[in-house]
Amino acid sequence: MARLYKHAAILGGIILALAVTGINPGAGNAQSSDKADIKKHKTSPGGQYQPQLDVLRDLGVEIPGRKPGDPVISPEEYKQANKIYFERCAGCHGVLRKGATGKALTGDITRDRGYESLRDFITYGSPGGMPNWGTSGDLSEKEIDIMARYLLIDPPQPPEFGMPEVRASWKVHVPVAKRPTKQLNKLDLDNLFSVTLRDSGEIALIDGASKKIVKIIKTGYAVHISRISASGRYLFTIGRDAKIVLIDMWMNEPTPVAEIKIGSEARSVETSKMKGWEDKYAIAGAYWPPQYVIMDGATLEPKKVVSTRGMTYDTQEYHPEPRVAAIVASHYHPEFVVNIKETGHILLVNYEDLDNLKVTTIAAERFLHDGGFDSTGRYFLVAANARNKIAIVDTKENKLVGLVETGTTPHPGRGANIVHPKFGPVWATSHLGDETIALIGTDPDKHPEQAWKMVQSLEGQGGGSLFIKSHPKSGHLYVDTPLNPEAEISSSIAVFKISDLADKEPQYKVLPIGEWSGISEGSRRVVQGEFNKAGDEIWFSVWNAKDQESAIVVVDDKTLKKKAVIKDKRLVTPTGKFNFYNTREDIY
Amino acid sequence: MARLYKHAAILGGIILALAVTGINPGAGNAQSSDKADIKKHKTSPGGQYQPQLDVLRDLGVEIPGRKPGDPVISPEEYKQANKIYFERCAGCHGVLRKGATGKALTGDITRDRGYESLRDFITYGSPGGMPNWGTSGDLSEKEIDIMARYLLIDPPQPPEFGMPEVRASWKVHVPVAKRPTKQLNKLDLDNLFSVTLRDSGEIALIDGASKKIVKIIKTGYAVHISRISASGRYLFTIGRDAKIVLIDMWMNEPTPVAEIKIGSEARSVETSKMKGWEDKYAIAGAYWPPQYVIMDGATLEPKKVVSTRGMTYDTQEYHPEPRVAAIVASHYHPEFVVNIKETGHILLVNYEDLDNLKVTTIAAERFLHDGGFDSTGRYFLVAANARNKIAIVDTKENKLVGLVETGTTPHPGRGANIVHPKFGPVWATSHLGDETIALIGTDPDKHPEQAWKMVQSLEGQGGGSLFIKSHPKSGHLYVDTPLNPEAEISSSIAVFKISDLADKEPQYKVLPIGEWSGISEGSRRVVQGEFNKAGDEIWFSVWNAKDQESAIVVVDDKTLKKKAVIKDKRLVTPTGKFNFYNTREDIY
Repeated sequence: MARLYKHAAILGGIILALAVTGINPGAGNAQSSDKADIKKHKTSPGGQYQPQLDVLRDLGVEIPGRKPGDPVISPEEYKQANKIYFERCAGCHGVLRKGATGKALTGDITRDRGYESLRDFITYGSPGGMPNWGTSGDLSEKEIDIMARYLLIDPPQPPEFGMPEVRASWKVHVPVAKRPTKQLNKLDLDNLFSVTLRDSGEIALIDGASKKIVKIIKTGYAVHISRISASGRYLFTIGRDAKIVLIDMWMNEPTPVAEIKIGSEARSVETSKMKGWEDKYAIAGAYWPPQYVIMDGATLEPKKVVSTRGMTYDTQEYHPEPRVAAIVASHYHPEFVVNIKETGHILLVNYEDLDNLKVTTIAAERFLHDGGFDSTGRYFLVAANARNKIAIVDTKENKLVGLVETGTTPHPGRGANIVHPKFGPVWATSHLGDETIALIGTDPDKHPEQAWKMVQSLEGQGGGSLFIKSHPKSGHLYVDTPLNPEAEISSSIAVFKISDLADKEPQYKVLPIGEWSGISEGSRRVVQGEFNKAGDEIWFSVWNAKDQESAIVVVDDKTLKKKAVIKDKRLVTPTGKFNFYNTREDIY
Repeated sequence: MARLYKHAAILGGIILALAVTGINPGAGNAQSSDKADIKKHKTSPGGQYQPQLDVLRDLGVEIPGRKPGDPVISPEEYKQANKIYFERCAGCHGVLRKGATGKALTGDITRDRGYESLRDFITYGSPGGMPNWGTSGDLSEKEIDIMARYLLIDPPQPPEFGMPEVRASWKVHVPVAKRPTKQLNKLDLDNLFSVTLRDSGEIALIDGASKKIVKIIKTGYAVHISRISASGRYLFTIGRDAKIVLIDMWMNEPTPVAEIKIGSEARSVETSKMKGWEDKYAIAGAYWPPQYVIMDGATLEPKKVVSTRGMTYDTQEYHPEPRVAAIVASHYHPEFVVNIKETGHILLVNYEDLDNLKVTTIAAERFLHDGGFDSTGRYFLVAANARNKIAIVDTKENKLVGLVETGTTPHPGRGANIVHPKFGPVWATSHLGDETIALIGTDPDKHPEQAWKMVQSLEGQGGGSLFIKSHPKSGHLYVDTPLNPEAEISSSIAVFKISDLADKEPQYKVLPIGEWSGISEGSRRVVQGEFNKAGDEIWFSVWNAKDQESAIVVVDDKTLKKKAVIKDKRLVTPTGKFNFYNTREDIY
């Protein structure tokens, strides 16, 4: 497999070279290619291009990169498509296009589907979770045309990014010796929110009480998450471009004190939380190269780069691109819980001795994505999304304790912990691919019958959910649906009353958050509820395109009424929000 | 690096395709290639071949596989060369030719050296340890010509060999239920020797008392080692072709009861020895694909395949081919000690729970090769041969305790443990690249000053040593030199008297084993001393070519006189010998 792949990739590179040299008989012409086409093309007189491909073919060189008649691509278009691919598509389909949450898009598959099918799929999306990039207005017709042609060419393998490159990217802006020894500002750090401004490559720090923007800070592109060090002092952000920015919250004003790039694409960052190891280390996981990097917690100095390439957990075949998904810090051992998407392994990486590194590799399920702890912080529940399952690890005993089928493509974020009136403590996830919300029992001591089983499946507004949220002090469970194709659903939130969950068919209330924002234009996707520290209000992003107005709507948890709307011209494409206290203490 | 490599490999494949299609302007003509040649070639009218290369070049496709004017190779020659490469060269230079004990032989390097230099190097060898394949008679002039041309082409990457392939190769000839419950034969299992018959793909089982061949058993090609299960019942052999044969010693006569292939090239096999885990698991390490496989100890059923691809320990850059060298079983934990050559990591693979696999990765030194335990069985000493060092791991505390510079390319085999008159317990290694024997202190309790230091460097007969040997009951230390270019040295053994080692310049006695064998023709390389169980005699192989007479010479350890010569026409190319008891108990 891997060999074939490489072969394809390199020859794809040759075809690209053909294109780059300007030999380009039909750029921009959308032609479907089937066997009749090939035949026609072979017998018809070609330009410069065709005979040269024929030379390769006659030499016995297989040309997986193209079929004659496929629309080709110019170097400028290729560059543009490459950028769009990495920003929009690689997250689900993989850098090497071998698929994960999204389907595989290797050349054999794309060329089999053909140009028109690709174009339409990108334009209209699918019920399985593929966004409607065309009809949503995110990509223009021209861009989609380029993307469909781009996908017919095999993907080039991006370069490695080992310690030399990681270290070269490392910058300490303010050395530890020049940082304060106590908090110099008057910010209520526990009730700050770090808000991802997706398309501007920034985060906004917003005060939980005043709802005012404290500061906008330049970060990596499309910050995936923010994490807070165990002491509450340091804020870590990681962009999709694998750039980490470390922000010291104790300085006169929150200030980036160090930065580093740990690869060319990434999603996860975490900080050591075990007693005695607070703030000591940070870890980040890359999508490309497939690796994780352990760093000094105060400076981001890279200490250890570990590749995740290896065998899948089930068929035990070599996978060239096992990407690192969610990472959390164990509370029971000095360990990070590192989830590997394509191989389906959960790694418990012990950071006690980096030179003699202990790692427990747990065979779980493929395509691990995101997850969170149960309410006790002992069990970690993670979605194996393309397998429709939740895998559960006991971080005290370091083994898999459950594997639960839930619904189509679970996407929990960190999930939500509630106390069910009948089943006791449960952890909940919603789904990208269907309208259900799955509740999984998490109390093996007092509710052994329910533990690690799906005890209930609630029916929500529809598919396309990304995040679900509650709080120990809340009586509600909130479910977003930002990727639902229907505007009314994608711009509103479903709320279940926890005390009603023992009913036969629990009903939900719809909060028209998009409408409440007062914004009338754009898709107004409503995404990711986040509680304040007190647990009495929940914040939602109203996420519009970069050139449109966005907002954050704050809802009173008791009354389920609008409490405040945060608008600011600097609030560009707000998505994920991370309350410092709740994030630090794993409260969700 | 890796990307460049792949690029080169694939384009090498193209060039090969060119050759395979029969376009072959100068096969067999040894031409050196320099810029003048290229120029001349470009302006002179070429055959079919040259214009087509030009097409590739004009398309902007780099052609690292060849330079115009390089002698090319026919498909038949390529096949022949490939076989010779894997049998003779890959062990030191690597499947991907990235080098380890031997130098890197990637296309950029070989083409830079040129055909003539390669030819001469293969013919005459080097003082650094490259054997003189030509002058020794191992390869003919024609074969060397083919090999030199073969090396100018970039290596193809061999296919993966994951669980599906491993499992497909697995055969149980005699199920456990049909095996005896006690030993049915009268063999003295503890004093049997398993002798590798290198070029016949067999082992000979020889009785230690009678010196008679008990049985010849078909195995993989060029069995690298034999290992005995903790109970003494099962014998495991692994061939260079990665084929393991499991032999049940309790049946009416020793019988192969299962076999498996764990890759396409391998060197190491071991069996679980921890108390409570005797005979439970086997493990084998492959050179290609870079991986280890854990199997059931009684059936060889493959349980777990783990890739070793990852970062080098020092520069922390990705390496595509980190081969598995020696593996030993820990006596302190249910763990295997797995040595990874190219990355310089020592893995402690815990076999208690294969689904939640715990591995400690110890950063040691690059190009780990072979090694053995100290006399207590707690510390494992392994040669980082291309770095001229011995790395030492404490298998109780699971960490590196020492890294000792010894001499040029240490090659200890399992090494030798002796009690030095001055420094107490030491472990010894000889060297491929120089004449010295290094003694390393191994007694941190009673000789803390000497522990993990080279306490003495003895001067032996010369370089080209592969194995060193002693026994707790012996007063001698034996050093072979089979790869020394001088016939007198390669056919004899140096013996040091342990009680003399406190002398200023300890002298050695030379045993003319080749002469004692009574064989007069051939190179009579004398290799690998192995003690009997009692520790009162030591066996040496007199290793001649496949079509020549070989022998085993038995020496009385007290008198250092010839005790017996074992000759038998079935004794084809005997090399390594493994006394069952000493191997099982790690006595050396």
